[in-house]
Amino acid sequence: MRETFHCELNELRAFLGAMCTRAATAMRHATEALLGADLVRAEQVLSADAELDQARDECEERARQMLALQAPKASDLRLVLSAVYCADRIERMGDLAEHIASAARRVHPAHAVPPELRDTFAELGKITAGMADELVVLITAPRPGSYRELDETDHLVDDLHAEVLREITSDSWPHGVPTATSLALVTRFYERFADQAVSVAKRVEFVSTGVTPAHRP
Amino acid sequence: MRETFHCELNELRAFLGAMCTRAATAMRHATEALLGADLVRAEQVLSADAELDQARDECEERARQMLALQAPKASDLRLVLSAVYCADRIERMGDLAEHIASAARRVHPAHAVPPELRDTFAELGKITAGMADELVVLITAPRPGSYRELDETDHLVDDLHAEVLREITSDSWPHGVPTATSLALVTRFYERFADQAVSVAKRVEFVSTGVTPAHRP
Repeated sequence: MRETFHCELNELRAFLGAMCTRAATAMRHATEALLGADLVRAEQVLSADAELDQARDECEERARQMLALQAPKASDLRLVLSAVYCADRIERMGDLAEHIASAARRVHPAHAVPPELRDTFAELGKITAGMADELVVLITAPRPGSYRELDETDHLVDDLHAEVLREITSDSWPHGVPTATSLALVTRFYERFADQAVSVAKRVEFVSTGVTPAHRP
Repeated sequence: MRETFHCELNELRAFLGAMCTRAATAMRHATEALLGADLVRAEQVLSADAELDQARDECEERARQMLALQAPKASDLRLVLSAVYCADRIERMGDLAEHIASAARRVHPAHAVPPELRDTFAELGKITAGMADELVVLITAPRPGSYRELDETDHLVDDLHAEVLREITSDSWPHGVPTATSLALVTRFYERFADQAVSVAKRVEFVSTGVTPAHRP
């Protein structure tokens, strides 16, 4: 019974890891769609999102069955509940990538990002997708301190987010209000994606160590 | 045992209902802060948010203990898991109200909302807080069709959200880019608050009927 349970737990972990890989891919493709005004890429992100929604539901169903059939206790129970929590966050990461792809599609064939902000958004895309990659590693092999690392990376995302907001609200912004408001939202999607990744890392570290990791000062 | 369980389940329901009441209050106060450039109100929302965060954690802890001690099955298990899901969404509703209060605080003593959009934001505040009120009723006494009603209300919020976006990106917008970008975000917080409320209603209806209610066409 216990062996079955731990086998299922490992499967659940692998399943969550695969969801993170999908979220990372969604973010990479969304950033490509955004920076390349690439409609095909944008559509790809939009249709892939349904799979991530389904995976979230499947994760919850697996967790429910494990709870119903095996009634785990203590740390095992915490693990199963956390998987449901994490799946929900990862699914939301997919939604945020989808929103970025939608923003690219909305203005196509025009570019959503003006030349002077391309590098910043490329960096946002690279860092946030990298955070999702990092989650794959953490979920498969949790280790103390990993939340802290992801939280540090989140600092960088916050800085880039602030940089975009400064740029689009500066007096010398030449691209008009519609572009500025669109970018205010898009940059927030990156920032929220990073926040969700940090939430997942925090939860993973909590269930592996039993201690809620301290928030950055 | 089963009696204890159902008693605890009712307590959990009441607990979630109280969380929704707090989210409704947070949204009302945030809208007052926004429309009245009221710093005291804004600070009140900001400090109340910690209580909602704590309530979410407590809800999860209660659910965990119920699962550990009573190992519920089938629909009872579904109810407990859904409580965790709903608590997370309601906590997020509080965060969104907090973001609106922050936006009011950021520009204080100036007003964040120009006169011609005051009615729209007042309406957004009224409708979304009303959705949280409605959740209190649904959680205490679930009934079929309630998700559909909240989903209809969400239509209105989407329309108001689109109206704000149209207004701030129109050629004749006289208030500059910083105000427009701030309002693009603030109106999205209202829209997201409504989305979360719909998610909760959908989940509540699902656990009470066993059927996932159909999405609006």
